[in-house]
Amino acid sequence: MKLEAIMHIPLSQYAFALTERTLVIRLRTGKNDVRRCELFYGDRVHPTNPIQVFSISMKKVASDALFDYYEAELVSDYTRVCYYFYLEDESTHYYYYGQQFLEKPGEDRTEYFQFPYIRREDMAIIPDWAKDAVMYQIFPDSFATEKGSIAQQPIEKMNHLKERSSTLNGGTLKGIEANLDYIEELGINCIYLNPIFVAGEYHKYDIMDYFDVDPCFGTKQDLKELVAACHKREIKVILDGVFNHCGAQFFAFKDVLEKGEMSPYKDWFYSLKFPIEFTTPPNYEAFAYVKEMPKLNTGHPAVIDYFCKVGTYWLQEADIDGWRLDVANEVNHDFWRAFRKAVKAIKSDVFLIGEIWEDSEVWLQGEQFDSTMNYRFTNLCREFFAKGSMSVTAFNYGINQMLMRYQRQVTYAQMNLIDSHDVPRFLHYAKEDERKLSLAALFLLTFVGVPSILYGDELLISGEKELEYRKPMIWHPNTKEQKMIDYYKELISLRKSSKAFTSGTFKVIIVDEAKGLYVFERREETERFWVILANTPNEATYTIPAENNKWQVAFGNPETIIENNSRHISLKLKAYEGLVLKQC
Amino acid sequence: MKLEAIMHIPLSQYAFALTERTLVIRLRTGKNDVRRCELFYGDRVHPTNPIQVFSISMKKVASDALFDYYEAELVSDYTRVCYYFYLEDESTHYYYYGQQFLEKPGEDRTEYFQFPYIRREDMAIIPDWAKDAVMYQIFPDSFATEKGSIAQQPIEKMNHLKERSSTLNGGTLKGIEANLDYIEELGINCIYLNPIFVAGEYHKYDIMDYFDVDPCFGTKQDLKELVAACHKREIKVILDGVFNHCGAQFFAFKDVLEKGEMSPYKDWFYSLKFPIEFTTPPNYEAFAYVKEMPKLNTGHPAVIDYFCKVGTYWLQEADIDGWRLDVANEVNHDFWRAFRKAVKAIKSDVFLIGEIWEDSEVWLQGEQFDSTMNYRFTNLCREFFAKGSMSVTAFNYGINQMLMRYQRQVTYAQMNLIDSHDVPRFLHYAKEDERKLSLAALFLLTFVGVPSILYGDELLISGEKELEYRKPMIWHPNTKEQKMIDYYKELISLRKSSKAFTSGTFKVIIVDEAKGLYVFERREETERFWVILANTPNEATYTIPAENNKWQVAFGNPETIIENNSRHISLKLKAYEGLVLKQC
Repeated sequence: MKLEAIMHIPLSQYAFALTERTLVIRLRTGKNDVRRCELFYGDRVHPTNPIQVFSISMKKVASDALFDYYEAELVSDYTRVCYYFYLEDESTHYYYYGQQFLEKPGEDRTEYFQFPYIRREDMAIIPDWAKDAVMYQIFPDSFATEKGSIAQQPIEKMNHLKERSSTLNGGTLKGIEANLDYIEELGINCIYLNPIFVAGEYHKYDIMDYFDVDPCFGTKQDLKELVAACHKREIKVILDGVFNHCGAQFFAFKDVLEKGEMSPYKDWFYSLKFPIEFTTPPNYEAFAYVKEMPKLNTGHPAVIDYFCKVGTYWLQEADIDGWRLDVANEVNHDFWRAFRKAVKAIKSDVFLIGEIWEDSEVWLQGEQFDSTMNYRFTNLCREFFAKGSMSVTAFNYGINQMLMRYQRQVTYAQMNLIDSHDVPRFLHYAKEDERKLSLAALFLLTFVGVPSILYGDELLISGEKELEYRKPMIWHPNTKEQKMIDYYKELISLRKSSKAFTSGTFKVIIVDEAKGLYVFERREETERFWVILANTPNEATYTIPAENNKWQVAFGNPETIIENNSRHISLKLKAYEGLVLKQC
Repeated sequence: MKLEAIMHIPLSQYAFALTERTLVIRLRTGKNDVRRCELFYGDRVHPTNPIQVFSISMKKVASDALFDYYEAELVSDYTRVCYYFYLEDESTHYYYYGQQFLEKPGEDRTEYFQFPYIRREDMAIIPDWAKDAVMYQIFPDSFATEKGSIAQQPIEKMNHLKERSSTLNGGTLKGIEANLDYIEELGINCIYLNPIFVAGEYHKYDIMDYFDVDPCFGTKQDLKELVAACHKREIKVILDGVFNHCGAQFFAFKDVLEKGEMSPYKDWFYSLKFPIEFTTPPNYEAFAYVKEMPKLNTGHPAVIDYFCKVGTYWLQEADIDGWRLDVANEVNHDFWRAFRKAVKAIKSDVFLIGEIWEDSEVWLQGEQFDSTMNYRFTNLCREFFAKGSMSVTAFNYGINQMLMRYQRQVTYAQMNLIDSHDVPRFLHYAKEDERKLSLAALFLLTFVGVPSILYGDELLISGEKELEYRKPMIWHPNTKEQKMIDYYKELISLRKSSKAFTSGTFKVIIVDEAKGLYVFERREETERFWVILANTPNEATYTIPAENNKWQVAFGNPETIIENNSRHISLKLKAYEGLVLKQC
């Protein structure tokens, strides 16, 4: 047995509570190395000694290049659980706990793995609505000025602080509201807006007043009306919270620039040095090295208090539904804990998404974020679908790792994205091949996690440089663009048609390297779908074993089916064509 | 290369900050599998693309049965670091990051491992004095009634709540104070007292008034005087905080027992059901299933507030120096975060030790505890020294795992114990062989972490059952007992003689399975010690390579040395004899 491969980490994504009575326990083993895997568990505080132990068998739920991942769901009345594993291969078997591999488990339960207490306060509880969301990301400056149009004219205004606010394209909140028909018809039920508060630059990440809307975008009243109009259509609204840094015109920074060490706000910034050098690079900490974005000292009680107030203000004032939190990984954890407590106290199902590109376990334990922006998803889609530089096998491994990366309920709320305002568009990497985008979108909308669509992806907007991938929305689509809109509509409607996609299980059915075929299952109690992705430049015929079931086309071209019986389904798929089958 | 063995977890004990400019990065590899290991790092937000990377070589610092552990200390001006590893064996090499093993690293820095920001608020900062502590654990009832004596008479008193308080042996706080000469002469600089607040049973874990001292033990004034007297002798005082549960006579529980659902305190307890069944087992959550110890709802704001006040009260009222926190793993994390903040605000160097027997990474990230009771240390010492059931090799592996278990500064503050009030005494497992205790004590006092001595270990107190291992202190030692006292004195004095023992590096020098010999080094800038443990029932001669240095005996019997030159040292050690050499 490959003992080096075996891993379990208590109180992590390998051992977590779904409810006060349900634990999920995972174990990693070497790939194809173990033929049986069981979980033994007991009541860690039971008065008898030794305690009674029970066992349940663990199921292989994921695999990558090196490892298999086993999982068991343990439902019991025990609030305090100790456990260990039994592993068996062809020639040998072990009991495993506490870094020991034993022929026979010892009787000292204190040495077993421990789930000390299923504390309700320590569970990662995600808002119910999150997993059902289909998100649409809007970069406000680039979206719309009025119904069906974007001015494409720069705006420059003197704001109420007598500072300059500017934008490039003239998008407004009223413009978004005027186009809710479009958004609703797409099937979107959640919009995420990049920053809208008073700031200098067009992107609005250099905020000078967190308590008001940027005059180029409109007014506080406009926001209230937008949110109300969204809610009427059952669309949630998520705003962008930029609390790592502020703009140089933020009142507190202006004060320290003016008064230096005498400013009562000198502790509001991280590592200020006096005299302040407002230079490039600055002599204080900032977002990257941008002097106009001084880093806030989010460890300071007054700063925590101030931004918790920002967090709750917009919940109360405009009734928003969530916060996407900018540069979340450079802010101290306790700030996020305080922020979560503050906003959840006002609206218990507010959805909190951290901008963290890398592994985010540390932030996803239940007391900070509900979700993070899933750039690993972005990278996999880019390499596999857009650039074609990743094999089906490698893609499948990446997908499997992603499923084991976090606690299950967190995985189902990950913000999956193909594009964001921060990276070149998928289509750019795909060399403008819309078939590749279609296939990636099919994956996005049928996979585990919250699909997020960047405005204009459905309109074939492409772009490599910042101003390109943030280019104005297209409001008069040509035929090709309209076709893609319709395609996205269908996809979103498919996702919303069954819980299988939003909360069902995921299972890999086929990984065919030679043919570039990837087939996976999404399934819940009564419904079962197979998503078929032919990620290949060649038209080809595929035969899929039907498992003695009858299947019908739930999405895609029914004419791709050549033969369909309970033994197999024969399909002829074009290059980069996808299809979804549903078991009858 | 054994890729399955390779592991790195960002923002864990594998990647942590010692200071705002110093990161420790660790990597696990297969055992004896890698011949070179380097850390590459760069500034993750540098404006150039690709960024410049630097490399430093990693050192193998620990090994167990399956793995080697490499470590590098990275000192730089970067606050935001991305990094990856280079690994080389005889035939191949890899760059490693993000679960990928590559021939050549990619240029996309966002895919490297990330240390997003060395936030000062997120560092695990341990009180300076902790690592220098030599702790003495006192079970108050069993220790002393007056200078040099313990009454050994039960006490039963009506306390100020008109409830019964009782003890078995008559120990008091005044008794402890009267014997501070003894404690100070031993060399102790920190005492940890089991609970002393108003409670029913002799052990005082069923607290009914957290704001007063149990009348059997004395008064609040006695505690103040005890702490003041300790501080005069530069002895710190740690109290036992029992916040997972209270006693059934605690005012809030009495109120719910009396008023049921009408009680304003009904939310102070975890999962109360009405009508309350005060039975065995009770129909509410409790410590184990003990009805007299109802579980507190430490997620309730009023309860958090109440016990934070308890925490700060005794700091302010009696000037204590730390809290040992009972059943810490069954209390919600946010309670501990609030508790830490509250007490550190009053006394920034208060030392917080959680009672957690298992792996405690989750609690030792810097925002909950400084240390935990190291029962893995206890178990290793029991198996290796007391029972002789563990090989030198297995012991060494266990020790090495322990050194890699937590962030380094946390490891140096772990509360290492051979005995506590909760387990049969070491001597019982050693079948009363005091040579074995001597050897284990030598290990305890020379190893990494805070040595904690249970009262009476230095007097050969043994015992299997609760009342035996908590038996009264011996105040009139016989010759054998006095010899052991003197031995402990010498050991403690050795530890306090050099920073090598409290903050120096640890390195294994010899693991000789055949001879039962274990030799390790403790070293700091100018001083270097070798601790030699002959854990064997046979007298034997040992030859130790002297590494071209001159060594002298720093502890133990100089007559054990047969030959001593710069090539080797020959030693004749009795069964279970230990020795410490110091480089001249």
